[in-house]
Amino acid sequence: MVAVGRGRRPAGSGTREAIAAAARRQFSDLGYQRASLRSIAGEAGVDPRLVLHFFGSKQQLFASVVELPFDPETTFDTLMAAGEQGLGRRVAEFLLGILDSPEGRKTATGLIRAAASEEEAAATIRDLVAQRLLLPLASRVGRDRPELRASLVASQIVGLAMARHVVGLTPLATASRAELIAALAPVFDHYLTGQLA
Amino acid sequence: MVAVGRGRRPAGSGTREAIAAAARRQFSDLGYQRASLRSIAGEAGVDPRLVLHFFGSKQQLFASVVELPFDPETTFDTLMAAGEQGLGRRVAEFLLGILDSPEGRKTATGLIRAAASEEEAAATIRDLVAQRLLLPLASRVGRDRPELRASLVASQIVGLAMARHVVGLTPLATASRAELIAALAPVFDHYLTGQLA
Repeated sequence: MVAVGRGRRPAGSGTREAIAAAARRQFSDLGYQRASLRSIAGEAGVDPRLVLHFFGSKQQLFASVVELPFDPETTFDTLMAAGEQGLGRRVAEFLLGILDSPEGRKTATGLIRAAASEEEAAATIRDLVAQRLLLPLASRVGRDRPELRASLVASQIVGLAMARHVVGLTPLATASRAELIAALAPVFDHYLTGQLA
Repeated sequence: MVAVGRGRRPAGSGTREAIAAAARRQFSDLGYQRASLRSIAGEAGVDPRLVLHFFGSKQQLFASVVELPFDPETTFDTLMAAGEQGLGRRVAEFLLGILDSPEGRKTATGLIRAAASEEEAAATIRDLVAQRLLLPLASRVGRDRPELRASLVASQIVGLAMARHVVGLTPLATASRAELIAALAPVFDHYLTGQLA
């Protein structure tokens, strides 16, 4: 075994993983906007061009390594287990809690920024949202049109994240979480259990 | 008077307006992603660096010249004049009609892409949305918290535009307009006239 010094890491086995690990840490610490390909490459000990070789762009790198700040399967199990009574409020409380947490906010704004700026990153994020979020939620909705219902909830949360955390549109940027939960709870009830047609 | 040939236009009076006119036309014809600073500069007969000098970035150029595909004042007058009965449906029909029209779709996706990618463009777009859309809507809402109500409607429309036209998330990308109008009408009723707290 040869100790790896401060020199650059060659392309090959383990390099992609080292870049992904550095990216995950920097996106998590700095957020999507402030993390740079150069600083991620520096931490991974590779040439920035190697990051582009493996991942194509900063957007795609983010989309490839992003991790959700909660486990959808167990979360939706818990939210749904208590029945339809109060479901909209429980969902609103949970989603607003995530959205306003430091990690949740960074994840949500990173996903929105990456998805809005590049087609390939948008495709990766579309698959992530569909498979990891909408499918687990839809599979627990005991009503007609479960996929439409899950995606309507997602669209309202994305629009709120955009207004509250990306664009800073008042009064959504300054409203208290309790106000927003009260306003959104009946909407999530409608989307998840109401008459859609 | 000296006839202006195909040569480049000097910086000065009228140049900013010529760039804005070319940008407006190209963003409208090609959409935000496909229009380029180079092609806009070419149509305006200026060096691309002059576009950056006047507007800072493609995002800010878009945010500065974008025009709404409808007049908010007369539109909201008409929508509100018929009373609160059926208001959510009328608002949903109007907004979905705009969002799915070629110009409305280009405007909405351009606004989202520009706002998500750069702070200064986001600030310009935030002011545009607040002054030109939310204020006229809020001033016609005869209920408590009119600004919050207007911005909640906007957040749902932005999230829908993001899912339907930017990311292409099914089933929102493929749902018929009639399906979406039916699903959204009660939500807009709630946001505009319901009990928020």
